[in-house]
Amino acid sequence: MVKVGVLKMGAIGTALLVEYLLDERADRGDIEVRVVTSGAKMQPEEAVVAEKLKEFDPDVVIVISPNAALPGPKAAREAFEGKPVIVISDAPAKKAKEEFEQKGFGYILINADSMIGARREFLDPTEMALFNSDVVKVLAATGAFRIVQEELDRVIEAVKKGETPELPKIVISAQKAVKAGNFQNPYAKAKAMAAYFIAEKVADIDVKGCFIERDPEKYIPLVASAHEMMRVAALLADQAREIEKSNDTVYRTPHSKEGEILKKFELMGKPE
Amino acid sequence: MVKVGVLKMGAIGTALLVEYLLDERADRGDIEVRVVTSGAKMQPEEAVVAEKLKEFDPDVVIVISPNAALPGPKAAREAFEGKPVIVISDAPAKKAKEEFEQKGFGYILINADSMIGARREFLDPTEMALFNSDVVKVLAATGAFRIVQEELDRVIEAVKKGETPELPKIVISAQKAVKAGNFQNPYAKAKAMAAYFIAEKVADIDVKGCFIERDPEKYIPLVASAHEMMRVAALLADQAREIEKSNDTVYRTPHSKEGEILKKFELMGKPE
Amino acid sequence: MVKVGVLKMGAIGTALLVEYLLDERADRGDIEVRVVTSGAKMQPEEAVVAEKLKEFDPDVVIVISPNAALPGPKAAREAFEGKPVIVISDAPAKKAKEEFEQKGFGYILINADSMIGARREFLDPTEMALFNSDVVKVLAATGAFRIVQEELDRVIEAVKKGETPELPKIVISAQKAVKAGNFQNPYAKAKAMAAYFIAEKVADIDVKGCFIERDPEKYIPLVASAHEMMRVAALLADQAREIEKSNDTVYRTPHSKEGEILKKFELMGKPE
Amino acid sequence: MVKVGVLKMGAIGTALLVEYLLDERADRGDIEVRVVTSGAKMQPEEAVVAEKLKEFDPDVVIVISPNAALPGPKAAREAFEGKPVIVISDAPAKKAKEEFEQKGFGYILINADSMIGARREFLDPTEMALFNSDVVKVLAATGAFRIVQEELDRVIEAVKKGETPELPKIVISAQKAVKAGNFQNPYAKAKAMAAYFIAEKVADIDVKGCFIERDPEKYIPLVASAHEMMRVAALLADQAREIEKSNDTVYRTPHSKEGEILKKFELMGKPE
Amino acid sequence: MVKVGVLKMGAIGTALLVEYLLDERADRGDIEVRVVTSGAKMQPEEAVVAEKLKEFDPDVVIVISPNAALPGPKAAREAFEGKPVIVISDAPAKKAKEEFEQKGFGYILINADSMIGARREFLDPTEMALFNSDVVKVLAATGAFRIVQEELDRVIEAVKKGETPELPKIVISAQKAVKAGNFQNPYAKAKAMAAYFIAEKVADIDVKGCFIERDPEKYIPLVASAHEMMRVAALLADQAREIEKSNDTVYRTPHSKEGEILKKFELMGKPE
Amino acid sequence: MVKVGVLKMGAIGTALLVEYLLDERADRGDIEVRVVTSGAKMQPEEAVVAEKLKEFDPDVVIVISPNAALPGPKAAREAFEGKPVIVISDAPAKKAKEEFEQKGFGYILINADSMIGARREFLDPTEMALFNSDVVKVLAATGAFRIVQEELDRVIEAVKKGETPELPKIVISAQKAVKAGNFQNPYAKAKAMAAYFIAEKVADIDVKGCFIERDPEKYIPLVASAHEMMRVAALLADQAREIEKSNDTVYRTPHSKEGEILKKFELMGKPE
Ligand SMILES: [Mg+2]
Ligand SMILES: [Mg+2]
Ligand SMILES: [Mg+2]
Ligand SMILES: [Mg+2]
Ligand SMILES: [Mg+2]
Ligand SMILES: [Mg+2]
Ligand SMILES: [Mg+2]
Ligand SMILES: [Mg+2]
Repeated sequence: MVKVGVLKMGAIGTALLVEYLLDERADRGDIEVRVVTSGAKMQPEEAVVAEKLKEFDPDVVIVISPNAALPGPKAAREAFEGKPVIVISDAPAKKAKEEFEQKGFGYILINADSMIGARREFLDPTEMALFNSDVVKVLAATGAFRIVQEELDRVIEAVKKGETPELPKIVISAQKAVKAGNFQNPYAKAKAMAAYFIAEKVADIDVKGCFIERDPEKYIPLVASAHEMMRVAALLADQAREIEKSNDTVYRTPHSKEGEILKKFELMGKPE
Repeated sequence: MVKVGVLKMGAIGTALLVEYLLDERADRGDIEVRVVTSGAKMQPEEAVVAEKLKEFDPDVVIVISPNAALPGPKAAREAFEGKPVIVISDAPAKKAKEEFEQKGFGYILINADSMIGARREFLDPTEMALFNSDVVKVLAATGAFRIVQEELDRVIEAVKKGETPELPKIVISAQKAVKAGNFQNPYAKAKAMAAYFIAEKVADIDVKGCFIERDPEKYIPLVASAHEMMRVAALLADQAREIEKSNDTVYRTPHSKEGEILKKFELMGKPE
Repeated sequence: MVKVGVLKMGAIGTALLVEYLLDERADRGDIEVRVVTSGAKMQPEEAVVAEKLKEFDPDVVIVISPNAALPGPKAAREAFEGKPVIVISDAPAKKAKEEFEQKGFGYILINADSMIGARREFLDPTEMALFNSDVVKVLAATGAFRIVQEELDRVIEAVKKGETPELPKIVISAQKAVKAGNFQNPYAKAKAMAAYFIAEKVADIDVKGCFIERDPEKYIPLVASAHEMMRVAALLADQAREIEKSNDTVYRTPHSKEGEILKKFELMGKPE
Repeated sequence: MVKVGVLKMGAIGTALLVEYLLDERADRGDIEVRVVTSGAKMQPEEAVVAEKLKEFDPDVVIVISPNAALPGPKAAREAFEGKPVIVISDAPAKKAKEEFEQKGFGYILINADSMIGARREFLDPTEMALFNSDVVKVLAATGAFRIVQEELDRVIEAVKKGETPELPKIVISAQKAVKAGNFQNPYAKAKAMAAYFIAEKVADIDVKGCFIERDPEKYIPLVASAHEMMRVAALLADQAREIEKSNDTVYRTPHSKEGEILKKFELMGKPE
Repeated sequence: MVKVGVLKMGAIGTALLVEYLLDERADRGDIEVRVVTSGAKMQPEEAVVAEKLKEFDPDVVIVISPNAALPGPKAAREAFEGKPVIVISDAPAKKAKEEFEQKGFGYILINADSMIGARREFLDPTEMALFNSDVVKVLAATGAFRIVQEELDRVIEAVKKGETPELPKIVISAQKAVKAGNFQNPYAKAKAMAAYFIAEKVADIDVKGCFIERDPEKYIPLVASAHEMMRVAALLADQAREIEKSNDTVYRTPHSKEGEILKKFELMGKPE
Repeated sequence: MVKVGVLKMGAIGTALLVEYLLDERADRGDIEVRVVTSGAKMQPEEAVVAEKLKEFDPDVVIVISPNAALPGPKAAREAFEGKPVIVISDAPAKKAKEEFEQKGFGYILINADSMIGARREFLDPTEMALFNSDVVKVLAATGAFRIVQEELDRVIEAVKKGETPELPKIVISAQKAVKAGNFQNPYAKAKAMAAYFIAEKVADIDVKGCFIERDPEKYIPLVASAHEMMRVAALLADQAREIEKSNDTVYRTPHSKEGEILKKFELMGKPE
């Protein structure tokens, strides 16, 4: 039984369901998961929750947050130095890649898990949820989440065998996402890549809308257009999957009860 | 500063982002949030995580899980008896309504937060994420999440003022969801209700596919059709919102820094 | 030459074109069809039209109406006792199944041929026609109408041969509809099932809107949402067929001049 | 009580539900309707059904068929000479306009109620139903069916008052259809007209596919493309209505119990 | 090196990019192209630009305009009599077919390159561009542009070899367009044909809107509906291509550097 | 009469119809237009066509090409130094802004007029046309083309009055495009901006696909995804316009016969 500890600070799309990616039907017998989070905030003082996670004595630690280059997430991961720690974050975290490497942290940085349009005139809980729905659609349908699944499972597997796991060092680009997506139709793949590229670009617009423009007349249209982009990226990623459905070639990788990754293409077939 | 403790057991759509519904831009100064979960599982022994949450000494406790009538969630909420506890769950939890009332637990039961198609031949982490993306879209766009926001904020507000909060006792039907959605166009409202009704119905199909049919030839088409229903419900809920956008009448309820719920309709207007 | 008598009372989707399902290109030489109806009404006194049909001395009688458990349709079918009578009706008629069996009536009850939103504030002739357009789309594209075709043709064939026909005893569920639909792509099948399930659910909402709620503020949104559901079911059923088109695997069962059911898949191929 | 007799020969879209256009909720107390038909066929010998209708002694007679210039429909309407007879038919019937005028028949000829692609390799009962679903959508959503409703109601009203009705003499063009559609948004109106024009054009293609081309390699693509045109016309007509919905300006004309045509625009308003 | 002279007078969709159809990646080494035009106008006095083109001494001349039966285009092509001249125009040019044949001009007349809705109340530069975008989509996706490519390349090839080219004499119907489109799925072909038929019909409506109706209340809805038809034709042509994409059977005919037409179907394959 | 000379080198979307933007109904009496181009190529030696244009002695010169920083376009514009020259180009031309300013050239650089995916395995004449159709849709529907119209008209107007025109110096960003688009609904504006941002991003992907990646396995998916992005941008821009249509607020700026820019919003209204 591998103990997987997850520490979440603030919200990125992947954080919403990272723990469920490990055990989508809640029937794995080989892992025990514990997640703690202080909610939407990610100040260094929130890192106190790391202490709670420590009491669980995890074998593998996942620290997931936006911009892992900030002090909050940094403090959190450092609390677990020595353990296998995997940082999951977004594009701005690329600034910290060198630090990750030096300190021996694994990392999965997801370019398309873009910043939200966090302006009070625009972002209420409903809009926040809708944006995250779209982000999740993009990340799942393109294949990005499968990389998360595969990398985490690989580490867990190594720990299970008593080996020292090789931690992931991966920045998820459109190309890497769709490779994991394992599209059988090349246009489905191209649409998925397009969706991913659009989702990536959202971050640029939202950064401008949240941190650069000061005038509501300017920043509201920016953040609103960024969310329109993510919405359209989600629709496009969905179309990519619809093509694979139309050819009965959707790639699926469910977990077995023992935590192996099974594989299948035909809907009516057996995962193996 | 009100301390809000959230205990999650297993996955329903609302669980994915309940803590972010309280503080969508991470700038509220009036609450402190702590979430713990043991991941996808919801056996009684998982209730041990409740102990961790107790150490946080929360003022308000949210216990969120599928089917809160099961022993696991029951043990979890009972660990906090005496505190203001709000159970958030799905339609099967209606069986436990009487118990909630007797023990003084508040509850928000969300009919459309339907069970997933948890069959290994069908449900891998990608499909699981896509389904949840669709559920979140339905719950957010119809107005169901706004009820969650409003009810939790109301309780927090009472605690902040030192009052004994009146805990919510609400089963979210289509009609209640769209009332909170505050649609200005009656056809947008009708589409949102339709989306909600479809999402509700998903549970029936998935129960049949997961618990009644034993033959993969029978249950795979069932769970696959249930997910198609949720997908189409999400698209329909999205169309409802698109109509409101087309008339610039989207209702938004962002939090102020002080945790009040502000209100606005016109995109370029100020929340008040 | 088999004489087929059709008696229609009131409107369900299937009634709109049941006689054309038997002879879609008007070139069958083996049957003679006579239809009589008193229009939208279905009171017992309307059963007088049955007398007119009797004068035609049909070999096979089809009595088609909503809710065949009501007195009007009952009187109508009883006028033909002794002849092979097939009742075609909707889900509420399931209450009369036992009676059908006892009296030796055949029946085809179509779950998804749901009640319309018959409220004066909502339903005008245009809305009525649009709803029926959607119902027909769902029933045709999912495969439900093919069951009607096959069952009626089977009975006619027996009569033609001088045999005593075995009358159909069938409640058309989603599963049975799509089996007749003979979808070659499993996702097309899942979408068709989803469409059928949604169409079935429409009846519940419309019953509530037409018979339970008294306040227009409540029942108008209900019936409007029910029609939105049927609209989306029609679009989904259409998508299912579009998938089959994209793979050139649409199943077609035209009649030969002699009234046999021919079969084909490839559009450019010959029916055989 | 006005007795309305309807004789149907063969199938056009309008024939599917003409009797329901008169009494969409089956609650009019001022008319009695009797419909007889010999199904899909329309040979002169089918006109025998007219005799059955005569026994009903109708006050108003509607003879509805494709191409009313053919001998079958001609014989049928002539059986009722002397009574107020209204011919409802499609564009090819325009050839008989002079005859209608001479003999005093009223007529409503609906340009967009186009011929089906009646080729055995293509048209089975399912395809036939789908095409008719699309035709009905076009005719209802553009406003063409409202002309049928208004003209028939006008004649019935005159008969009710003991007046000699002025019979309709109308060829329904796109312009006339959308005038009755009473669109409040000019782009909705333009889309509805476009839908109608496309639906009209279907007839040309189907005539070519059914009567001119002899080679299946040529006629199958023609009839298939004609049905694609009707499908797209239906989608476009639906979009026109969606625009009116988005502005809450859908025009509705339900019947009162007394058979008057009521009017309304706002969904939540009362018809008056 | 073959010198290709292009003279454009006025605007049809094909004129927008005829020169790019010959050298889509600007890397052909075997042709030199010169285009002159006097813009949107097409009066006979504009034919002066022909003089400029003469100075280029082209080996092949393309004269492209709406309605080549008008005096302006006529003067233009006659300026090049004796050279291989290919007239590219729209349906109204069919009136001049005999003249083309007599004078030895080649011609490609594109039925679906329909007249725009040239009414000042409706057509501004933006609407003009959008209409042309839709026309181009229809002509490209159905296969019509491939005929232009193939015919021009064939003539160029003959000239290159020192042969007297056989000039094209072709009226592009829906059937011819989709033959060049080389659709592998028969429903994709049917959709493309449907798109082409709709686009053809646009001309009739726009002629009525521009030349026959005098009252803005009448002609504005006409030209607006014509553009809605072209928009929907573009969407339908796009769907046809999407089906081919879904099966990885899009037919592509890029030029080699030497100006040959290469062929390919699979996206990841090599053109040959 | 102002003589407007247009020199096109190579293809960008704006080049396809820049001359028609000036005179969309071919009825302006105040300008004379002459366009010359050497087709798809843009080598310096192509600048010879500039000589032909000089013979026309234009009052205003437009030099339009991709990447105006390249030697070909540079030579072309320098041929007209001293005259009012306006460079129209795409984002890479921004490198030459300083040169433009120094030499007194006006410029309009259109960020979203992105490079095509010019790979032989992917780009044939059909794909080229489809891409340009999408680009034109984006540039027209967002408002970018209106800036081109307004700036060119402003210069022409000054020349007409005998004034020295102030030449445009503008880089068209999303924000500037939608300002000219004059959207009345803020979500339509946000969608248009989103479309524009996506279209801009296409250039990055195509540059990578055309100039950086050498392996077809890598560059084909890149250019294919770039075209999917432009396709989706076109659909989104179209949706923005559909919203304005649904509110009858489409902004139109037709030319009067005298070349003034008229303005209107309501479709049935008069331009003024
Ligand atoms: Mg399981
Ligand atoms: Mg903030
Ligand atoms: Mg396929
Ligand atoms: Mg009633
Ligand atoms: Mg036949
Ligand atoms: Mg090249
Ligand atoms: Mg004009
Ligand atoms: Mg509106």
